[in-house]
Amino acid sequence: MSPSEYLEQNKALYEAQLTDFLSIGSISIDPACAEDVKRCATWLADHLTSIGLPTVKIYPTPGHPIVYAEDLSAGESAPTVMLYGHYDVQPTDPLNLWTNPPFEPVVRDGKIYARGATDDKGQVFLHVKAIEAIYKTHGKLPINIKLLIEGEEEIGSPNLAPFVRENAELLKCNAVLVSDTSMFAPGEPSIVYGLRGLAYMEINVQGPNRDLHSGSYGGAVQNPLNALATIISKLKDEYGHIMVEGFYDDVLALTEQERADLAALGHSDQRLKQDVNVDTLFGEEGYSSIERLGARPTLDVNGFLGGFTGEGAKTVLPARAMAKVSMRLVPHQRHDDIANKFINYVKSITPPGVTVDITDLHGADPVLVNRDSPAMHAAVKALEETFGTKCRFTREGGSIPVVLIFDQVLGVPTVLMGFGLDNENAHSPDEHFDLGNFHTGMKAAARYYELVAEMVPA
Amino acid sequence: MSPSEYLEQNKALYEAQLTDFLSIGSISIDPACAEDVKRCATWLADHLTSIGLPTVKIYPTPGHPIVYAEDLSAGESAPTVMLYGHYDVQPTDPLNLWTNPPFEPVVRDGKIYARGATDDKGQVFLHVKAIEAIYKTHGKLPINIKLLIEGEEEIGSPNLAPFVRENAELLKCNAVLVSDTSMFAPGEPSIVYGLRGLAYMEINVQGPNRDLHSGSYGGAVQNPLNALATIISKLKDEYGHIMVEGFYDDVLALTEQERADLAALGHSDQRLKQDVNVDTLFGEEGYSSIERLGARPTLDVNGFLGGFTGEGAKTVLPARAMAKVSMRLVPHQRHDDIANKFINYVKSITPPGVTVDITDLHGADPVLVNRDSPAMHAAVKALEETFGTKCRFTREGGSIPVVLIFDQVLGVPTVLMGFGLDNENAHSPDEHFDLGNFHTGMKAAARYYELVAEMVPA
Repeated sequence: MSPSEYLEQNKALYEAQLTDFLSIGSISIDPACAEDVKRCATWLADHLTSIGLPTVKIYPTPGHPIVYAEDLSAGESAPTVMLYGHYDVQPTDPLNLWTNPPFEPVVRDGKIYARGATDDKGQVFLHVKAIEAIYKTHGKLPINIKLLIEGEEEIGSPNLAPFVRENAELLKCNAVLVSDTSMFAPGEPSIVYGLRGLAYMEINVQGPNRDLHSGSYGGAVQNPLNALATIISKLKDEYGHIMVEGFYDDVLALTEQERADLAALGHSDQRLKQDVNVDTLFGEEGYSSIERLGARPTLDVNGFLGGFTGEGAKTVLPARAMAKVSMRLVPHQRHDDIANKFINYVKSITPPGVTVDITDLHGADPVLVNRDSPAMHAAVKALEETFGTKCRFTREGGSIPVVLIFDQVLGVPTVLMGFGLDNENAHSPDEHFDLGNFHTGMKAAARYYELVAEMVPA
Repeated sequence: MSPSEYLEQNKALYEAQLTDFLSIGSISIDPACAEDVKRCATWLADHLTSIGLPTVKIYPTPGHPIVYAEDLSAGESAPTVMLYGHYDVQPTDPLNLWTNPPFEPVVRDGKIYARGATDDKGQVFLHVKAIEAIYKTHGKLPINIKLLIEGEEEIGSPNLAPFVRENAELLKCNAVLVSDTSMFAPGEPSIVYGLRGLAYMEINVQGPNRDLHSGSYGGAVQNPLNALATIISKLKDEYGHIMVEGFYDDVLALTEQERADLAALGHSDQRLKQDVNVDTLFGEEGYSSIERLGARPTLDVNGFLGGFTGEGAKTVLPARAMAKVSMRLVPHQRHDDIANKFINYVKSITPPGVTVDITDLHGADPVLVNRDSPAMHAAVKALEETFGTKCRFTREGGSIPVVLIFDQVLGVPTVLMGFGLDNENAHSPDEHFDLGNFHTGMKAAARYYELVAEMVPA
């Protein structure tokens, strides 16, 4: 029996096991979930042992633990692939917008709904099942495999980089494989070769020393909410151009070839508008949506809070206002440099009568992966054989900071072979994962491991 | 014994009774407090009966009840004064900024701290005690008195106007007295002759149909938080001038005399800056602070909410954003007209890719009271005799919508004789009321009732 046939026979079982994995509320950002995160690591480690991986360890970190497993029995003549993924998930708020509770997975219309379904538990688990299928059908793996599954990706992987640096020998490999990205469209397998970086800032504005009655003080005292709105409005102009001074200095212009390649993807603005239900798209003038989404830097307000936000009308002139603002970066922008420029710019545009405090909460540099490595070729072949259609190369808007670390520390290329879809609500209510892609993804993963054995030098 | 001497002897008792009144959490906006609001009405009615008022009634309304009492035994030859006030209070959030729980009154440095202390329970109660002192010393009142104490002032008095219209005969009087305003400064008694109106609006911005991952969609889909910040930033220019089209059309210009009178009040910008701890004041260019605070219209954002506002960094492009915006109006602006202009203007400046929904939550027209009525003269005399200093005429920033209703329905002038101070945190944590003003206010009130008997025709 081939791994692919074995996988076909065990669909129901694997879906049930995925449901167990998704039932654990491993929200890494929430201190109240620390025990669930730990429980999830244990569940995953136990599962890896159960499928036959000879070495499975849980490494504690100052934050959440790292699950590591390996099977090096293919020997030194075989290449080594390291699979990276994460078992932690995003927070679930606003909870009231979920159709079902986020940690009680349900299947509707061929999709499994739960927090973490597509990002990233479902995508990690399909590799685990691909490895299991090879064990069950061939008795052993054709390559050496290492699995590095962390619990802090959704909070910026603070402890992964030190772990990778300290364990460079342990993690030595010929290629890194990551499934934490999206396919270009349903039925169209893709490899992401560009990832944007991130600079995530928080602006706190202090006005008067206490909340004031807007009737008694309004008109003479600067209002921090008005002031913060003014600051935000000056971050981008009406053409979507980011106004932070020097923001575009290091942006690598798209080549004509890249623009042509991106245009050839046949992205549909109409489909995007329907997907998110807006009548007009909006972005940086002079660029297409597909360029804006992956190849150009962006700036978004992620949260804004201040004053009275309950029911009704309270006439308060609040003491404080807060906004979270993140910028997606592209090569060769650097997180540190952009954070500094942002801080200086916001200070320069702050209206009189308030003070601002700006914090750099989280960041990552952007990355571009070489499209021409043997591991990349193996991935393309595995996807094209399994899905029966041409593989696309895309640039994705999100950030996976560890890709840069693997490049720097391990000196190997990362293949970003994602099986998610952009509309699977990765960070919003009703996150889900297409079960068709779950099962086809397993087969593609199994085929990839076989092809690496043939195509990648040890 | 004079009422004043009697009041002097009973200071401790009256402070203890005020403490009881302030201990009841009569937050009218909060449905969870409905029973407390009712309990407060009952407490007040019982207290009015206990001091000797022959008629005390609690009138139910579709919302919170109205407490009414009267003593008409002075007869038709004596003038009738109606005292208006409210026993409901503002919400208490942010609760963590209170030094003591808001409904456990404490006295510190001669001030009583509790929600409602200055707005308006303390000011209502000093009249109750003034009436009691006259009963105890003279056995009867020199005037006919009606007390109308409502429980919905902090939510815009939705049921008071219908009540006044339906009970115009019951409420017939020669003057209305309200103590729900501030003195110009400590030791300087004042009568407010101008009150600003209000238009309180809520803007809801809808972007995409769900919260999106800012990495996957940011740059191509309009962000409702950015859009709302842009809308807010266009409501006022950098000189504090309100940009809503036609906003100033009906604003009555200040006369040279009024500007001179206001300037003569000797308002101190330095003191205001110290009070609220800001290094610069900010307001409409071309006007002084005292003019900006009471005689010019203003616009303030009272609340702003959207996206992820917890700890840390969630990269969400939210579906929705909300802001509450209120405008203080001056004669002859009208609430309805300004609300319409606001709605049209916000629609005209809404960026592409989002839709806005604007609600007129609450409003009131501005009012100017005739400074030259006999009741006004009696009030000035009572204040000047009791405080031993000249009475000031001021215009206040806040709104007391019922003043307009009393004018329209009862056809009598309202005397706004307030004993609060601007820095008593009426709508913020640590609200308090100066006990010196509480006691002097009682004496001034008792003297006012005596002077009305002499000076106001029946």
